[in-house]
Amino acid sequence: MTRGQFITFEGGEGAGKSTQVKRLVARLQGQGREVVATREPGGSPGAESIRDLVLNGAADRWSPVTETLLMYASRRDHIERVIRPALERGAWVVCDRFADSTRAYQGAGGGTAPELISALETHILEGTRPDLTLVFDLPTEVGLERAHARASGEMRFESKGLAFHQRLRDGFLAIARAEPDRCALIDASPTMDDVEAAVWSAVSQRLSIDA
Amino acid sequence: MTRGQFITFEGGEGAGKSTQVKRLVARLQGQGREVVATREPGGSPGAESIRDLVLNGAADRWSPVTETLLMYASRRDHIERVIRPALERGAWVVCDRFADSTRAYQGAGGGTAPELISALETHILEGTRPDLTLVFDLPTEVGLERAHARASGEMRFESKGLAFHQRLRDGFLAIARAEPDRCALIDASPTMDDVEAAVWSAVSQRLSIDA
Ligand SMILES: Nc1ncnc2c1ncn2[C@@H]1O[C@H](COP(=O)(O)OP(=O)(O)OP(=O)(O)O)[C@@H](O)[C@H]1O
Ligand SMILES: Nc1ncnc2c1ncn2[C@@H]1O[C@H](COP(=O)(O)OP(=O)(O)OP(=O)(O)O)[C@@H](O)[C@H]1O
Ligand SMILES: [Mg+2]
Ligand SMILES: [Mg+2]
Repeated sequence: MTRGQFITFEGGEGAGKSTQVKRLVARLQGQGREVVATREPGGSPGAESIRDLVLNGAADRWSPVTETLLMYASRRDHIERVIRPALERGAWVVCDRFADSTRAYQGAGGGTAPELISALETHILEGTRPDLTLVFDLPTEVGLERAHARASGEMRFESKGLAFHQRLRDGFLAIARAEPDRCALIDASPTMDDVEAAVWSAVSQRLSIDA
Repeated sequence: MTRGQFITFEGGEGAGKSTQVKRLVARLQGQGREVVATREPGGSPGAESIRDLVLNGAADRWSPVTETLLMYASRRDHIERVIRPALERGAWVVCDRFADSTRAYQGAGGGTAPELISALETHILEGTRPDLTLVFDLPTEVGLERAHARASGEMRFESKGLAFHQRLRDGFLAIARAEPDRCALIDASPTMDDVEAAVWSAVSQRLSIDA
């Protein structure tokens, strides 16, 4: 049994990640593959209960370091109970946010030391690293406008102010630049259909799909 | 303003820690000191909400590694919001369980890699280390009998079986042996009054209290 491919979507609020996860999953399933669509924080019952702690409440409910540990606790549960078993049985896993969101939100945005984040990546991810990461980029104001128009209950991060979201965007761009083999930078400003085409082009080229 | 002293109580289930924390706190307060009595996991509103996740539910609800991260998330919140501010204003802090419980429960008991636990101690505790740790030692069966007789709602760890609790005891003994300057080993089997006397003797000698 060959291990499945692990694809993650990353980028700021309202960039269109969740919209495009659905489209990519449908397309891969249309090819007859087993695909597990999941998200972070959350994705397993334990991780979803941690998600509730992290995404609700006042903006200063958790410090960036505490938040980093909560994110990695939920990630570890998600990896052990959903992602790793799926990849091992040959399924593809498409995940809406993953470890790069911690680097960007708690690291670049929140100021958590890169050494702590690296230590957690080493000890907690172990071998479970994405084969391909789609980094959605969009001017900060446009993303926040899209996210506000949609309006869900979980507003802790959306409420953090423009300077925070600017650091976020820069953080994601830095990751894409530093790891070009793993990451494809996606311009998230055109129409949904155009973004879908860009995503499909990156996935099919980089993961050598015979379509 | 001199920094206050930080005293922690450690040891297996039912050893008598909570009983003796109360007595020591009363004695120190009787000397006119400001004393903050607190506990882990928990001790701050955020940390208590994480405690609820960790201590309830089925024994296999969380893997040892996930549990380690949840414990350190709650510990970080507790340090930032309660322990460090108290020590800085000169108060003494007496804490019912702290970082050694993670080494014993998730490490020696659960098998979490010592490298992960050490990395968390470095990055998360930073300077907030106990000045004195009282390690309560008791034959495993006696402690579990005491704990069961008391019977609280939080039974996740108590339900883990005798072999787990034996590894726990050995883990705490190894910590006390490895760090004799910080740790005082307390025989927890005699009467409460005798244990109280042993605790007071360790505290007054090691922290040079003029009583
Ligand atoms: N290319 C696009 N052009 C215009 N609007 C879009 C585009 N893609 C998504 N949207 C809309 O923007 C809003 C946010 O999209 P979506 O929820 O997919 O973003 P997201 O990246 O998952 O956001 P979050 O990080 O908050 O989860 C939705 O209302 C969606 O319909
Ligand atoms: N020296 C002692 N001799 C006999 N019984 C004791 C002694 N000390 C405490 N106990 C009793 O044993 C039970 C457990 O004590 P306590 O709650 O203080 O232990 P603990 O170490 O805090 O346990 P846990 O780790 O479960 O929190 C209580 O009912 C307490 O009254
Ligand atoms: Mg989304
Ligand atoms: Mg107790």
